[in-house]
Amino acid sequence: MATTFVSDRNLNFLLHEVFDLASLAEHPLYREHGRRSFDMIIDATLKLAKEICLPTLREMDEQPPVLTEGRVEVHAAVRRFMRECGDGGWIAAGFPHALDGEQLPQMLTCTCRYIFAAANYSLSVYPFLTAGAARLIANFGGAMLRKTYLPPMLSGRWQGTMALTEPQAGSSLADIVTEAVPMDAAATKAGSPYRIRGKKIFISAGDHDGVDNVVHLLLAKIAGAPAGVKGISLFVVPKLRPQSDGTLIPNDVAVSQIYHKLGYRGCPITELEFGQRDDCHGTLVGAPHRGLFYMFQMMNEARIEVGAGAAAIAQAAYGAALNYARLRPQGRALGAKDPDQPPLPIIQHADVKRMLLFQKAFVEGSLALILQCARYMDLEAISTGVEMEKYALLLDLLTPVAKTYPSEMGILSTSQAIQCFGGYGYCEDFPVAQYYRDVRIHPIHEGTTGIQGLDLLGRKLVRHNGRALGYLLAEIQATIASARNTAGLTAHADALATSLDQLDAVLAHLTVVAQSDGPDAYLADATVFLEFFGIITIAWQWLLQAVPAAAAEGTARTASDRRFYAGKRHACDFFFKYELPKATALATTLLHPARPTLETHARHF
Amino acid sequence: MATTFVSDRNLNFLLHEVFDLASLAEHPLYREHGRRSFDMIIDATLKLAKEICLPTLREMDEQPPVLTEGRVEVHAAVRRFMRECGDGGWIAAGFPHALDGEQLPQMLTCTCRYIFAAANYSLSVYPFLTAGAARLIANFGGAMLRKTYLPPMLSGRWQGTMALTEPQAGSSLADIVTEAVPMDAAATKAGSPYRIRGKKIFISAGDHDGVDNVVHLLLAKIAGAPAGVKGISLFVVPKLRPQSDGTLIPNDVAVSQIYHKLGYRGCPITELEFGQRDDCHGTLVGAPHRGLFYMFQMMNEARIEVGAGAAAIAQAAYGAALNYARLRPQGRALGAKDPDQPPLPIIQHADVKRMLLFQKAFVEGSLALILQCARYMDLEAISTGVEMEKYALLLDLLTPVAKTYPSEMGILSTSQAIQCFGGYGYCEDFPVAQYYRDVRIHPIHEGTTGIQGLDLLGRKLVRHNGRALGYLLAEIQATIASARNTAGLTAHADALATSLDQLDAVLAHLTVVAQSDGPDAYLADATVFLEFFGIITIAWQWLLQAVPAAAAEGTARTASDRRFYAGKRHACDFFFKYELPKATALATTLLHPARPTLETHARHF
Repeated sequence: MATTFVSDRNLNFLLHEVFDLASLAEHPLYREHGRRSFDMIIDATLKLAKEICLPTLREMDEQPPVLTEGRVEVHAAVRRFMRECGDGGWIAAGFPHALDGEQLPQMLTCTCRYIFAAANYSLSVYPFLTAGAARLIANFGGAMLRKTYLPPMLSGRWQGTMALTEPQAGSSLADIVTEAVPMDAAATKAGSPYRIRGKKIFISAGDHDGVDNVVHLLLAKIAGAPAGVKGISLFVVPKLRPQSDGTLIPNDVAVSQIYHKLGYRGCPITELEFGQRDDCHGTLVGAPHRGLFYMFQMMNEARIEVGAGAAAIAQAAYGAALNYARLRPQGRALGAKDPDQPPLPIIQHADVKRMLLFQKAFVEGSLALILQCARYMDLEAISTGVEMEKYALLLDLLTPVAKTYPSEMGILSTSQAIQCFGGYGYCEDFPVAQYYRDVRIHPIHEGTTGIQGLDLLGRKLVRHNGRALGYLLAEIQATIASARNTAGLTAHADALATSLDQLDAVLAHLTVVAQSDGPDAYLADATVFLEFFGIITIAWQWLLQAVPAAAAEGTARTASDRRFYAGKRHACDFFFKYELPKATALATTLLHPARPTLETHARHF
Repeated sequence: MATTFVSDRNLNFLLHEVFDLASLAEHPLYREHGRRSFDMIIDATLKLAKEICLPTLREMDEQPPVLTEGRVEVHAAVRRFMRECGDGGWIAAGFPHALDGEQLPQMLTCTCRYIFAAANYSLSVYPFLTAGAARLIANFGGAMLRKTYLPPMLSGRWQGTMALTEPQAGSSLADIVTEAVPMDAAATKAGSPYRIRGKKIFISAGDHDGVDNVVHLLLAKIAGAPAGVKGISLFVVPKLRPQSDGTLIPNDVAVSQIYHKLGYRGCPITELEFGQRDDCHGTLVGAPHRGLFYMFQMMNEARIEVGAGAAAIAQAAYGAALNYARLRPQGRALGAKDPDQPPLPIIQHADVKRMLLFQKAFVEGSLALILQCARYMDLEAISTGVEMEKYALLLDLLTPVAKTYPSEMGILSTSQAIQCFGGYGYCEDFPVAQYYRDVRIHPIHEGTTGIQGLDLLGRKLVRHNGRALGYLLAEIQATIASARNTAGLTAHADALATSLDQLDAVLAHLTVVAQSDGPDAYLADATVFLEFFGIITIAWQWLLQAVPAAAAEGTARTASDRRFYAGKRHACDFFFKYELPKATALATTLLHPARPTLETHARHF
C-alpha cells in the first residue's frame, strides 16, 4: 500500500521503468552508485520525511515564524531538519565529490526534494534553497568563497538565500537599485569586497534561528554600472561576517518585516535592509555586471523545483482525498436508490472518480515531466558536443513548462481534493485546506506565469534558430511511434499527433503575426500559448508512461502490479479524454483574429 | 468613478439597459415602486455596505467567532447590521405588504444582497439566511408560526437558519436520522409540537450573540416515517422557546463545536445538538413527510444566492486588482526596453489586461445570469398559466448553472486577482488572499457542484418532456437573432449558434447512451456537462449585454459612457475568443467514447 503523502510505487515506476535511472550509473560520473544505493537513498528520504517533515506540517502552519527584536524565530523542526539534511548528505547530494558532495544524478536529488516537499513544503525549502545558493558559489565563486561558505552551507549550519526582488523591482529586475561600492577602488574583480546598501523583499528564509548564519546571494548594481539588466552584479552577503580567525560579527543586515501569507507559512518570507549603518560587506561573485547571467544559470533548476513543489503538494492533497474517498460512505448507485441499503464509499461514484483521476493525471503527469527535465540535466552532464547542446536546449525549452503547468494546475488539483472532502475540506481540521493555501505561491515565485510565457514564446522557442523545438518534436514523435505499436494506445498516438499539427499551425500563425504586427501582438497571448504547450507536453509524458505500463500490465506477476498498471492506463485514458481536448480550444483562441487584450485600454475597465 | 468593491455603473446597465427593471413597476404587484425608488434603495444599500460591511471585512476574518461556554461570540458588527437590515427593510424586502414586507422585485433584492456580499460576504449571510428561513415559514407555516416568528426575524432580532446536514448525511439527505416524536400522539398535523432529537453539522449562523434568538428550519424524520427522502419533515426549532406570555426559555439546543474554516470566517458554522436532555420542542411545518419538498421550494433562491455570493466576492477581488494594476509601475513595453525610461503601470501590459478582462468577463457575465434568474422569478410572480410555467421552468433549469458557474469560476477569478498583485497578492495584508479563501466555500454549500450536475442533466433537462430546454433555446435564439442585426456582433452570433448545435449533438449522444447503457453512463459526466452548458449560458448573457451596449456606444453623450460601452464590447470579445472555445473542448470530451471514470475501480488508484 502506498504511503499517503507520496506514492513510492509510482516513483519506482517513473525512475526505473520509464526513465531507466540505473543506466546512468554506467557512466563514470555516477559509477559509485547503482540501483541498490538509489533505492536505499529513497528509503532513507521517505524515513526522514515521515519522521520530521510530516509530523510538523500542521504545527508549522499554525505557528508561523515570528519576528522578535530583529530576529526571526522558526519552529524547532527547522534546525533539526537542516542538520539531518546536512549530516545525511541531502544538501550536498548533487555536488561533486571534490566538494564533499554525493555526486548523485539530478533525477535522484529531484526525487528526494519531491518527497520532502510532499511531506512538508515549507520545511523542504530551507535545505534546498541553501543547496541552490551554494551551487552558485560552487560554480562562479572563487576558492576563498568556496572555502569559507560551502562547508557550513552544505552541512546545514548556514542558510542560503536568493535576494533578487526589491519593492520597485519584482518581475522587472532591470529596475533594482541596491548599490555596491567597492571598498578599495582598485579592487573591483571577483572576490573583491564591496559595501552594500539597499532593501530586498520577499526573501524566503531570509533570516531565522534554525541556523547559525544566513548567506544571501544578492543582486546589486555597482556604482556607475550600465542601466538595466546589463548592470547587475552578484554578491555573497552574509548576515554575520566571518573574520579571518573564524569568528562571526554582525554584517549590518536587518530584518525589517516578515510577511503574513496565505500559505507556505512554515517558512519566513522577509524584508531585509542591507547597510543601514553603512557597514554591510559583500563579496563580488565572478565578473562585474554578469550577475543576472550567473543567476539564470541556476534558474532552470530553481524553476523546476517550484514545479516539483507544486506537484508534490498536490500529490499529498490527492493522497488525503483518496484515503477519505475510500472511507466516507455517502449516497447510493444511481440505479439503486433503495434507502434501506447502506450507502457506498464515495470513491464508487463516477464524479468522485473523475475528481480523483483528475488529480492522479495531473500529479503523475507533472512528476513525469519534472523527472524528464532532471534526466535531461543528467544526460547533459555526461554528454559532449552536439548531444550536450541537445539536452541543454531541451531542458531550457521545457523549464517554463515544468515550472508553470504544475503550479497553475496545482491550484485546480488541490481544489478538487477539497471538493472530495465536501464541507470537511473547507475546514482547517483536515490537511487539504492547507495544501490549497500552500500551493498558491507557485505561480508567483521564481518568475510569474506571465514571465514564463514570455520566456517560452519570446526566447526559448526562437533562440538558436528554433533548434530546441526541433529536438523536442523529435522526442515526442519517437514516443508517438512506439505508442502506435502498442495495443490500446493507437488512438492516443493519433490524438497527440493531431495536437502537434495544431502546434505547428499556431506557430506558423504567430510567425506571421510577429512579422506583420511586431512583438506586442506576437507575445500578447504568450501565457495562453504556454498553457497550450503545457497540455501537449503532459500528454506526451502520459503516452511515455503508458507504453511501458501497457507492456507490463499483461506480464505483471502480482495482482498489485496489475492494478497499478491498469491505473496508469485509466489515468492516461482520462488525460486524453478530459484534458487534451483543452489544447484544441486554446489553439482556437490563439488563432482567433480578435485582440481584446491589446485593444482594451485602462479606461475601459 | 466606480466604487472599488462593486460597479454601480454596471448594476445600472444590467438593471435598466439590459433587463428593464422599471417595466416591472407597471404591474400591480410592484405598483408602489418605480425607477426613482429603485435607485434610492440601491443608493441606501451602497451606503450601508460602505458604512458597516466594508470596514469590518478584514476584522471579521481576523477575529472569527469564538465558542465560549456554549455561546458563540461574533463581531459587534453583526448585531448592528442585523438591526439595520431589519429596521431598513432589507430582510423583508421581498416579502409581501401583508407581512409588512417591501414587496420589491427579486431583481432588486438580489442586487442588494450582491452589494452587501461584495462588501463583506460573511456579514451578508446573517440577514439573508434569516430572510430565506422566514420565507419558508411565510409560505408553508400556519398563522401561529407566522405570528410568532416572522416579526422578530424580519426585524433582524432573531436569526434564521437551515438545518439540513448531519454527520452521516451531507449530499445524501435521504440518510438523515434526526428524530421527531409527536408530543401528543393525536396531534400530528401542521403546527403540532414534536420532541426533537439529533445532531446537525455545518449550520451557518447556527448560534451567535448578535441576535436574541435563533430559529432553525430543521429537517427530521417522524418516528415511523417512510425510509429515504419521502420520510423527511420540516420543523421550526428555536434556540429559545417562546412562551405564551412572550418570554423565552431554553429549548435544549446546544452548540457542540464551531468549525475553523479556510475562509468565510466572519460567520460561525456550527455543530448543533438537539434534545440532549429530551426537552427540545419543534413545530411541524406543513404536512408530515413533505419537508424536502418545502425546502426545495426555496432552494432555487438559496442556490442563486450562492452563485451571487461567489460573483460578488470575485467582483470585489477584481476591483482590488484593477486599482492595484492602475497604480503599480513595473516593466516596460515589449518594443521599448530602454531601462532609463520610467516603468509602465502594469495595467498597460497585455497579459495583465488579459487577467483583468478574464475577471471582468466572469464577474459581469455571472452577475447578468444571476439577474436573469431573478427576472424570471419576477416574471413568474406576475404571470399566469403557460407564461408562468415557462418562467418557472426557465428558472428551474438555470438554477444549477447560476449556482455553479460563478462558484467554480470564482476560484479562478480570485486567483487571477492574486496574480495581478504578484507576491503582494499572496500576503494577507492585501484583501485578495481573503477573497480567494472566502470564495472557495461556494462549490460546496447548498449542494456541491457534483450534485448540481446531476440536478441539471438528470432532472431539469428531462422533466416535463424537456420543455425547459425548449424555452431556454428560444430565449437564446432571440438574442442571437438580435445580435445578427447588430454591427460587430455577427461573428459572435454565429459562434453561439454553433455552440447550440454542439449542445444538440451532445444531448442526442447522451440520449443514446442513456438508452443503451443506463443512467450510470448517462450521468457519468454530468459535472462536465454542467460546465459545458454553463459556458454557453454565459456566452448568451454576454451577447445579451453586447446588443444594447453596441447601440448605446455610438450615441452615448459622455466620454465616460462611451468608455463603459467600449469596455462591454471588449469584454464580450474576450469571452468569445478566450472562453467560448472551451465549450467545444468539453463537447469533445462529452462525445468521447472512453469511459475511464466508470472503468476505474477503487483499487486502481
